[in-house]
Amino acid sequence: MCGIIGVFDADTGCQNKYNSQDYAMLGLFAEQHRGQESCGMAVSDGGVFKLKKEMGLVKQVFTPEVLSQLKGRIAVGHVRYPTRGSATHYNSQPHVVETLAGPSFALASNGDIVNYSQIRSELEDQGVYFASDNDGELLIKYIVYQVDKKGKSIVEAIKLLMENIKGAYSTVLATRDALYMFRDPQAIRPMVWGKTDDNVYIAASESCALNILGIYDFDEVNAGEIIIVTNNGTEKILGVDDRNKINLCHCIFEHIYFSRPDSYNFKENIYMVRECIGSLLADLDDFDADMVIPVPDSANFMAIGYTRKKQIPFEMGLIRNHYVGRTFIKPEQTIRDEGVQHKYNALPNFFEGKKIILVDDSLVRGTTIKKIIDLILRAGAKEVHLRIGSPPVKYSCFYGIDTPTKEELIANRKSLEGIREYIGADTLKYLPVNLLKNIVSKPDNYCSACFTGDYPI
Amino acid sequence: MCGIIGVFDADTGCQNKYNSQDYAMLGLFAEQHRGQESCGMAVSDGGVFKLKKEMGLVKQVFTPEVLSQLKGRIAVGHVRYPTRGSATHYNSQPHVVETLAGPSFALASNGDIVNYSQIRSELEDQGVYFASDNDGELLIKYIVYQVDKKGKSIVEAIKLLMENIKGAYSTVLATRDALYMFRDPQAIRPMVWGKTDDNVYIAASESCALNILGIYDFDEVNAGEIIIVTNNGTEKILGVDDRNKINLCHCIFEHIYFSRPDSYNFKENIYMVRECIGSLLADLDDFDADMVIPVPDSANFMAIGYTRKKQIPFEMGLIRNHYVGRTFIKPEQTIRDEGVQHKYNALPNFFEGKKIILVDDSLVRGTTIKKIIDLILRAGAKEVHLRIGSPPVKYSCFYGIDTPTKEELIANRKSLEGIREYIGADTLKYLPVNLLKNIVSKPDNYCSACFTGDYPI
Amino acid sequence: MCGIIGVFDADTGCQNKYNSQDYAMLGLFAEQHRGQESCGMAVSDGGVFKLKKEMGLVKQVFTPEVLSQLKGRIAVGHVRYPTRGSATHYNSQPHVVETLAGPSFALASNGDIVNYSQIRSELEDQGVYFASDNDGELLIKYIVYQVDKKGKSIVEAIKLLMENIKGAYSTVLATRDALYMFRDPQAIRPMVWGKTDDNVYIAASESCALNILGIYDFDEVNAGEIIIVTNNGTEKILGVDDRNKINLCHCIFEHIYFSRPDSYNFKENIYMVRECIGSLLADLDDFDADMVIPVPDSANFMAIGYTRKKQIPFEMGLIRNHYVGRTFIKPEQTIRDEGVQHKYNALPNFFEGKKIILVDDSLVRGTTIKKIIDLILRAGAKEVHLRIGSPPVKYSCFYGIDTPTKEELIANRKSLEGIREYIGADTLKYLPVNLLKNIVSKPDNYCSACFTGDYPI
Amino acid sequence: MCGIIGVFDADTGCQNKYNSQDYAMLGLFAEQHRGQESCGMAVSDGGVFKLKKEMGLVKQVFTPEVLSQLKGRIAVGHVRYPTRGSATHYNSQPHVVETLAGPSFALASNGDIVNYSQIRSELEDQGVYFASDNDGELLIKYIVYQVDKKGKSIVEAIKLLMENIKGAYSTVLATRDALYMFRDPQAIRPMVWGKTDDNVYIAASESCALNILGIYDFDEVNAGEIIIVTNNGTEKILGVDDRNKINLCHCIFEHIYFSRPDSYNFKENIYMVRECIGSLLADLDDFDADMVIPVPDSANFMAIGYTRKKQIPFEMGLIRNHYVGRTFIKPEQTIRDEGVQHKYNALPNFFEGKKIILVDDSLVRGTTIKKIIDLILRAGAKEVHLRIGSPPVKYSCFYGIDTPTKEELIANRKSLEGIREYIGADTLKYLPVNLLKNIVSKPDNYCSACFTGDYPI
Repeated sequence: MCGIIGVFDADTGCQNKYNSQDYAMLGLFAEQHRGQESCGMAVSDGGVFKLKKEMGLVKQVFTPEVLSQLKGRIAVGHVRYPTRGSATHYNSQPHVVETLAGPSFALASNGDIVNYSQIRSELEDQGVYFASDNDGELLIKYIVYQVDKKGKSIVEAIKLLMENIKGAYSTVLATRDALYMFRDPQAIRPMVWGKTDDNVYIAASESCALNILGIYDFDEVNAGEIIIVTNNGTEKILGVDDRNKINLCHCIFEHIYFSRPDSYNFKENIYMVRECIGSLLADLDDFDADMVIPVPDSANFMAIGYTRKKQIPFEMGLIRNHYVGRTFIKPEQTIRDEGVQHKYNALPNFFEGKKIILVDDSLVRGTTIKKIIDLILRAGAKEVHLRIGSPPVKYSCFYGIDTPTKEELIANRKSLEGIREYIGADTLKYLPVNLLKNIVSKPDNYCSACFTGDYPI
Repeated sequence: MCGIIGVFDADTGCQNKYNSQDYAMLGLFAEQHRGQESCGMAVSDGGVFKLKKEMGLVKQVFTPEVLSQLKGRIAVGHVRYPTRGSATHYNSQPHVVETLAGPSFALASNGDIVNYSQIRSELEDQGVYFASDNDGELLIKYIVYQVDKKGKSIVEAIKLLMENIKGAYSTVLATRDALYMFRDPQAIRPMVWGKTDDNVYIAASESCALNILGIYDFDEVNAGEIIIVTNNGTEKILGVDDRNKINLCHCIFEHIYFSRPDSYNFKENIYMVRECIGSLLADLDDFDADMVIPVPDSANFMAIGYTRKKQIPFEMGLIRNHYVGRTFIKPEQTIRDEGVQHKYNALPNFFEGKKIILVDDSLVRGTTIKKIIDLILRAGAKEVHLRIGSPPVKYSCFYGIDTPTKEELIANRKSLEGIREYIGADTLKYLPVNLLKNIVSKPDNYCSACFTGDYPI
Repeated sequence: MCGIIGVFDADTGCQNKYNSQDYAMLGLFAEQHRGQESCGMAVSDGGVFKLKKEMGLVKQVFTPEVLSQLKGRIAVGHVRYPTRGSATHYNSQPHVVETLAGPSFALASNGDIVNYSQIRSELEDQGVYFASDNDGELLIKYIVYQVDKKGKSIVEAIKLLMENIKGAYSTVLATRDALYMFRDPQAIRPMVWGKTDDNVYIAASESCALNILGIYDFDEVNAGEIIIVTNNGTEKILGVDDRNKINLCHCIFEHIYFSRPDSYNFKENIYMVRECIGSLLADLDDFDADMVIPVPDSANFMAIGYTRKKQIPFEMGLIRNHYVGRTFIKPEQTIRDEGVQHKYNALPNFFEGKKIILVDDSLVRGTTIKKIIDLILRAGAKEVHLRIGSPPVKYSCFYGIDTPTKEELIANRKSLEGIREYIGADTLKYLPVNLLKNIVSKPDNYCSACFTGDYPI
Repeated sequence: MCGIIGVFDADTGCQNKYNSQDYAMLGLFAEQHRGQESCGMAVSDGGVFKLKKEMGLVKQVFTPEVLSQLKGRIAVGHVRYPTRGSATHYNSQPHVVETLAGPSFALASNGDIVNYSQIRSELEDQGVYFASDNDGELLIKYIVYQVDKKGKSIVEAIKLLMENIKGAYSTVLATRDALYMFRDPQAIRPMVWGKTDDNVYIAASESCALNILGIYDFDEVNAGEIIIVTNNGTEKILGVDDRNKINLCHCIFEHIYFSRPDSYNFKENIYMVRECIGSLLADLDDFDADMVIPVPDSANFMAIGYTRKKQIPFEMGLIRNHYVGRTFIKPEQTIRDEGVQHKYNALPNFFEGKKIILVDDSLVRGTTIKKIIDLILRAGAKEVHLRIGSPPVKYSCFYGIDTPTKEELIANRKSLEGIREYIGADTLKYLPVNLLKNIVSKPDNYCSACFTGDYPI
């Protein structure tokens, strides 16, 4: 999981005013939840792309001093999630490719390529060189190869890419005078775009990044669509030759966990999807309890949805410390498995003798929730009933989620009862797979392979 | 406002095991909400105090590499709130004083000294030199002067300090073989202490810092009390010659805004005080509304208190971005007056046509809440009724809160109606001063001078 | 003036052993006198070129830690003289160009291109982009354009370069599996190459850089010659289609000032050329003096040549401080015009009442020698007779020497008597232009345009 | 071996003009040959001493930016030679001691204390704490103890120091309003002082540091003398109660190797002493040779002395690379034992068939000269006759020279013939011990214990 941003200032006035780097920084800041390991930005003022990629949070890396060195009119940016791969400069984004005409392409993408090895081999056979194992490099090298070696236009190159490269890619591609936004024909990862009142065009992974820039009126970059932004405004092109090749497979996990609750992805309000999940979870229970407690912050709206259905009080009994710094992030670790005792605390004199409904969004390895339940029990709770806002995660994702290997997934290693016993809950219920269809308006447009194993490709 | 930590490892085993720096780091991390501008730590392993003070968050400054350089048995630490004063090395804490016997005193303190100028003059007349304008330096120089020049014991020096120095000081003082914890006879700022199972003694500003270290059983460092920790355990001494000199004046603002909701300060559960405030606010209203929305996170429990009394739904309609980085903090600014549009966003498709009860903890300048209300109205809300969980702030604080000058306080510049109009709310209500007595069990033990102007000293 | 190095380890054994970066560092260290402003190195281990360019001395920039990050088999390096141009990353060398096949060309060159603007325009008309004003970028972009766009082989590209690009270029060009050494058909700047006993091929600006690597048996890279080094050894190719196009124009100033006295450039021993100059200067005088003093270190051998002819004692009366650091170098300044009082001191109790022959290599602006003469006179000397080991510098150089503009050259602004008066010498003599032919064995092969204005191209 | 500087600007005009830091930097730069490992400076503007100590050369550490942070009126500085001890911050100078009256003493010293352990024990028994093993810390703690604990004046404290502390100490001590210069009653290490035309007083290890500041008229800080500089000018005090306690023991090695040839130490011109040594060496030989070659630069004047006596030509056949950088210095190594092949090169086509007199100043371990002789022989020399400008070094120094242990000294491990054979010379001669008395005018005032074992204390 990662976040992208693309900026094109279509104002044709005084060059000095261009501040695409500031727009990009704020957009990345709003998308920080999608990746905290490293961030990067490539900015052009019509000339050489200036590139800055570094470990750390957006506000740490892109200080005012750094931004003043990156001043320009066109920018693409990226925040990277700590994944298993090495956190090197080569493996992080954006990627810039210098052709003889100068360093003229910069690209940032979110999502994983399924046929990466095959495409890479084909390009290597043509003499194309790869410096990293990163999907973004594959995309930019593919495009530059088509343009520089095969004489294709950039749009033709992207169309070929859409025909041949399989998987998820919500992508921004900048040249020295244009910004291209495009998205895979399955629209696996989110991607939106809009325009400020000052004529600055922005593409982003989530709408919260447009909101921070004052844009509330925005659209999806549609599946298989290419949008070109130049001084003359925008042009939309269908990137596939046949509409039938568009086959929507939105990632359901974006709604459950990844996205910010104030985002509007795949034409759904994330917070509403989560409240709906909570409501469905409530329907599964027919006993009373003293309170509903979310694991903050991702399960907040699920807990609210639960509480509303059952009239059991919603309580914020767990306090989360948000002041993480650079070193808190350990790239070796996968999803949310870090020191719970540093991050959460229980309200004092609160849980004593209480019967608790604890709501979390998902259960991957189970190590974190085990510690949280222990925290609550030590605080005196009588019973802890864990409700998970998604079905058991049993399958690895090939489209951009950094899940553990199948062997590490607790749902593959233990029975429901075994999991319950391991984490120390009194009861444990997941959202049943068959209810997933109830949480979104167009369930057929979604991929839920991590729960079902039914991979769309 | 600042946070302190003191660590003494009373285990007399192998020296290599001492990791007081790790305890101090985690404690400061838990107290990060009390100061994000800079942090510092002084650590001794029986020898020279190693000192590290730097701008930045605890997890940024105290990386594993830095901590490995600070290994030791005794530590004092400090997080500093961005105040008006210059953020220099000299003005930050801890302070270390080298006497001829080596750099043997390290001190960190929270709170402001009222008769600073007078005491400093007296010491300067005796030839004592000051490198900063910081209260902590005054305390350490006072003590060292009494010990080094007047032949007093450290305890005698602290007793003299308590007799002569007026104001707030929750203080930890380390020597190369002992840790002294002491607190002003008014106990203006919070201070607690406890012991881990491994015989490590910890003093902290708030109990959440003890919790993170696994300590749930703890005490207040009482008003006017001195606690000495050595290899032989602890000794408690009354620092004033007469119990009548103890005159409790706890800061009421700690409950309203400063402290973490999971802390237990002045023998009160913070979250309960805030829920009580919300409940009292609810009693003031006799109309219905669609929802109660807190300004996250400080007003969360007040909103919950409100919602419980009136059965108006609690909603988390504002999303806060927590990924602040180093540069987000601008020391020139005072309390919470930074770019609201970077920090908050409204849920989409949520506020349309709604009548909102918006709850915030306090109103200082009014600039932030004005922007939040604008955000909610632009999101379509029909009415916004602002409820403030404290009386109007009309007076500056002399005990450690960095309030603006009286002229900048909106409650001094405008009438209630003027304020309401300025911030754009449909109605505005504060918690009445006379109800403050209802939110804590021993109201006479509190200072509420910032609301009343009745300064205890 | 700059220095270059190229390294190719032709040993085909274990990859781990390759240390071309260490060879390059030592070679650059030996050529440090050719440029102290910045240094750079690009190293490949068969993959991406790792590039490091930074302000500072070789031993400061290429620390063991840095070198360990640059491990590889093929390396090109560069030291840069402080010139008038801006000391930016873009303007420094080596240059690396990434084609679609990866960052596959790295180039370092010494010398100036005469028809830079014309060639750049031609390339820009073909869409080639330039990020700097540096000659090295012109050369690499020219070659890559011919290879990548015109389908030429690298050798063909270099041949075209030799036909079309006028000026000085002693150049090393690395690909991921070969090292190309080539030199302009006039052989304006020095360039030598050799091989270690371990089968490591080295190209360098001066032979002292080969000596430091244990190579004492070496050759010139001949005028217009291309030498290709691969795993299979070396191949030499004539880069021009007609030997008549080779027209030697060695820079005479290399012998007079630039080169290290222990180098063997243009098949001459530098120290012998300088001794010869001193001897010729001595022939011009027919009076006695107490001592001959060189301005250290460049005029040492001239002074020795003088003393030998006239039996006037050679004395090292001026002491030079060599411990310059990074900040001592001011790129705004031109040749040797920095604070003489920091750099030179006179022996005490030495010059009193003495008649001095002071020898310097050249006179550009005259400001430094004026201060040195003042130093000697204040030390009590009775007379100072200045002898300059070259004719008056009257013309700017177009082939790589950073001379001041014609207007700044003292020889253009003042008469001989005016110069003498300005610098405060009792007498002043230059090496007469007509004697230049006596100092080298093949005078027709040299350019002395800075003295005569007879530019070879 | 180290170098010191002390600066006091006695001008009482506008405070803004004070630039003692610039004077100190230049003075240290001139003394860089006395220590290249680290350098430090403490500067006061009447207030807190600002202290900067760091690894690296003077011009690297004290950049214009750093100096602008150190602006002040009084400064003491130090350059440190790479010694066996650890190169930590604690072990480097200057030392600053903070008394209760602020950080008010700063001290830099050159020389070793003989009864260090005894004095340290005595002070520790009084409760004085030591953070390092550095002699400078002993001196400052001794003085501060006498002043702060015993009520002595600073002058009284220095007098007590002179009575009780044995060994070498050329010292500058700064307070916030005065500079004290003092030197041990044996005057083991050099120390001079003077005044600029602008009323700035300077103390330095060597006169070359005064010259660089424009001071040519200067005095010794005499043995056992204390010189106090304040706004009112200077006062000289005899630091011992009885002139008989003054017993001159100047280090003869300062003349042979340590000092710069343009310095005037112990009232001798260093270059003249070295020329005299060369002349004495020449007297020992009665054969002819082709040339006399010095190991540059320390033996230059010895070789000139030799050549003048015997009319054998002086030649600079070895070229030394002076562009050492930070990493070239390896603190683990002792005197001049680093990679000779990096540092020296032989002139090409020069030594072939020649009979060489090679002159070096001293022979410690013999490893360097062995490599140099090998270099010359590989360059074709027929015979190499090594002449050493000092007697065999057989004894360790207790006064500040970092000599290897006795076991490492080649003169203790091998016979003369054994040494000759090891280093590969055809003949080897040292300066006979009995001739040492001929090289200085007052030989009884010198210590030559490293040659004779006759330690003066």
